[in-house]
Amino acid sequence: MAHISIIGTGNMGQAISSVVTKGGNSVELLGKADIDKPVTGDIVVLAVPYPAVDQVLAQRGEQLAGKIVVDITNPVNFETFDSLTVPADSSAAAEIAGRLPGSRVLKAFNTTFAGTLAAGTVGPLTTTVLVAGDDADAKAALIEVIGASGVKAIDAGALKRARELEALGFLQISLAAGEKVSWTGGFGIVA
Amino acid sequence: MAHISIIGTGNMGQAISSVVTKGGNSVELLGKADIDKPVTGDIVVLAVPYPAVDQVLAQRGEQLAGKIVVDITNPVNFETFDSLTVPADSSAAAEIAGRLPGSRVLKAFNTTFAGTLAAGTVGPLTTTVLVAGDDADAKAALIEVIGASGVKAIDAGALKRARELEALGFLQISLAAGEKVSWTGGFGIVA
Repeated sequence: MAHISIIGTGNMGQAISSVVTKGGNSVELLGKADIDKPVTGDIVVLAVPYPAVDQVLAQRGEQLAGKIVVDITNPVNFETFDSLTVPADSSAAAEIAGRLPGSRVLKAFNTTFAGTLAAGTVGPLTTTVLVAGDDADAKAALIEVIGASGVKAIDAGALKRARELEALGFLQISLAAGEKVSWTGGFGIVA
Repeated sequence: MAHISIIGTGNMGQAISSVVTKGGNSVELLGKADIDKPVTGDIVVLAVPYPAVDQVLAQRGEQLAGKIVVDITNPVNFETFDSLTVPADSSAAAEIAGRLPGSRVLKAFNTTFAGTLAAGTVGPLTTTVLVAGDDADAKAALIEVIGASGVKAIDAGALKRARELEALGFLQISLAAGEKVSWTGGFGIVA
């Protein structure tokens, strides 16, 4: 049993909350109005769009020291829909990890749409969350939390792999925006 | 009906050959011993590992002018398994297109393992090939050839998206190499 804080109450925050709750873990969902409430979870999910991460870190960066911090963002340039906004040889997760040297940063949930996370399925497949990070214990803790819900979770390697996870997230969003796949479909994983 | 040349007789060349043949198209499969045979297909698939592309282009570059050229490579650094060998802001497809200004270059087949291409399925899903390229007619021609076989094909956007397709291919290979998925599984697409 873990206690998880989710910062952000949008579609993704709510879908992740439902996954975590299904697994019997406790959840604290923090919105913009909760700015004065301290973060109490051992695992903290930054469930806000990438441009909003900056403000969250400015407000709560010190509270995140010692915690497992989960970056779920896809830093897509939503004006052009043709690139990411992070340097080509970096990732949003790497940028966030650089800002939080006292936290164990993981990348996860960015390759699953909110709909497939909440449903637990992508078409005939069980939804699978890809988790990347440099701290094995932190990764194992998050994978256990996700797995307890019935959604699958796979260790996708070091935090450096966040670059490929963000490319996959971007590709999936661009396919959905182009109506090649639906927002309740996308990539599924066959083990 | 199209006539397709496949340069490379390995697992991928053979799997692509079987897909193309199923769709009622004619195939010419060219191995290393066929260096003196001219390429006769309207669509030419470079089904060789990325390090071998250089030699193929040196030998056959002029023959490829005016043709649709399909790059299927995943330029993974197989020594470290930790990065691609192309610049972070580029792709193998972009490098190849730069070398073949008279050809219409497409990226395809790099996100499907040979096993799922040949089988036509990824677990319960029909295998889907992602195709990227800047020439709409060339893309439509390849998508028709693939679709006729029963395997699905999706237009994944401009050739610039090859970068994300190669990230996906690399991620899938690293998951298989790490025994997180099997070489007959991997990513499937739910429309």
